[in-house]
Amino acid sequence: MMTIGSKQPLPPKGNKVRLYSNRFCPYAQRIILVLDAKKIPYDVVNINLSNKPDWLYDKVPHGKIPALEVENGEILTEDLIIVDYLEDRYHQHPLYPKDPLQKAKDRILIEKFNKVVNAMYRMMMSVGRMNMTDDEVISQGLSVFEKELTERRTPYFGGTKPGMLDLMIWPWCERADILKVFGNQHILKRDKYKKLMEWRVQMTDDTIVKKSLLHSDYHIKYLQSYRAGMPDYDLILNSN
Amino acid sequence: MMTIGSKQPLPPKGNKVRLYSNRFCPYAQRIILVLDAKKIPYDVVNINLSNKPDWLYDKVPHGKIPALEVENGEILTEDLIIVDYLEDRYHQHPLYPKDPLQKAKDRILIEKFNKVVNAMYRMMMSVGRMNMTDDEVISQGLSVFEKELTERRTPYFGGTKPGMLDLMIWPWCERADILKVFGNQHILKRDKYKKLMEWRVQMTDDTIVKKSLLHSDYHIKYLQSYRAGMPDYDLILNSN
Repeated sequence: MMTIGSKQPLPPKGNKVRLYSNRFCPYAQRIILVLDAKKIPYDVVNINLSNKPDWLYDKVPHGKIPALEVENGEILTEDLIIVDYLEDRYHQHPLYPKDPLQKAKDRILIEKFNKVVNAMYRMMMSVGRMNMTDDEVISQGLSVFEKELTERRTPYFGGTKPGMLDLMIWPWCERADILKVFGNQHILKRDKYKKLMEWRVQMTDDTIVKKSLLHSDYHIKYLQSYRAGMPDYDLILNSN
Repeated sequence: MMTIGSKQPLPPKGNKVRLYSNRFCPYAQRIILVLDAKKIPYDVVNINLSNKPDWLYDKVPHGKIPALEVENGEILTEDLIIVDYLEDRYHQHPLYPKDPLQKAKDRILIEKFNKVVNAMYRMMMSVGRMNMTDDEVISQGLSVFEKELTERRTPYFGGTKPGMLDLMIWPWCERADILKVFGNQHILKRDKYKKLMEWRVQMTDDTIVKKSLLHSDYHIKYLQSYRAGMPDYDLILNSN
């Protein structure tokens, strides 16, 4: 992992794109999921966010990750713009619905999921218990997706395999057990989110999703280290 | 204009789409600019935002505007998702660059412009003078666009005619004189934003832009009525 004082890595080889990333960043994982699903050749440079290397600021505006290095060393930022770029640029294994209306509706749902993301973030970052409002935001937010999946009558939002909508909400669903530890035990009642729970099991078992999947234990340990003021970005390396 | 107690209008005729809008909403104007630029048949239902008609809540989630009614009465929300939908669905008069990388870079700039939008919003809504931070945010934000336009060496960001990036930032640039009245007189120094000022003159003269253009006097009068707690949505009708 690249930390302060690290030498800048050589440019990516061949036609690879490069992701400046962090192992525990859910936004970066969105991009990795799309790179894997579309089978785009890439490498990853992981960054220690507590001690960013100096060269990162020359390479990426404000040293912000995730950032994607593409042809001619050009840099793209903003996770959702990056995944749309990958879908536009690489036609293999399309992830959005072909129908523009359905695509727009899926993008609106991705946007709506931000409410859940933000409530989870507030919960993860605060030292105290999750407040009632965030509880309700998450619960109501997930109900929208439970209803949607029930109406679609398909195992995934994208149909018979995960599509863009599945992949964009996945990183936070992978981390859902965090809610049990740091939030309200009862928020994820199995009978309230029956379809979503089935979906989560199937996602966990998907070949593409498995590639970047981290076990809940790691997410919980990482969050504990983060909340203690010393985020352990090397957690996985040290454990292996 | 539709206000509380108004009857729900009949569905749009033929193959028209319908925009639920408000004359002074810059987000709605983004969509109108794209509809006009792509010559998509549409009608507009203007909504009194202080007294929304009851049927709007049945039609549009949370009664939020802008919203676009498309085939089979389906409703799309989120201005930027709507304009992307229009670009995907209607191939005539494309507004994004063909090159996926350039398209992504333009979308990142649209995202960056949000900083200017938010600072302008804070300034427009507060009764006091604009604070120094917002001043700087606007000034630095516009400098990015001045530099970009200079480097592109074209009259518009989109080349020889306005493209998506031009249209997405335009509604706030049309309202720039507001800054002189309610903000800092010196923020829009002509010599600091030479290229942008030229661009603004050319945009004002563009056939498409002209269609939805309102003179600064209207924007200023509307904002005065808004700040006085009685937004005058009928301002233009009353003046004509």
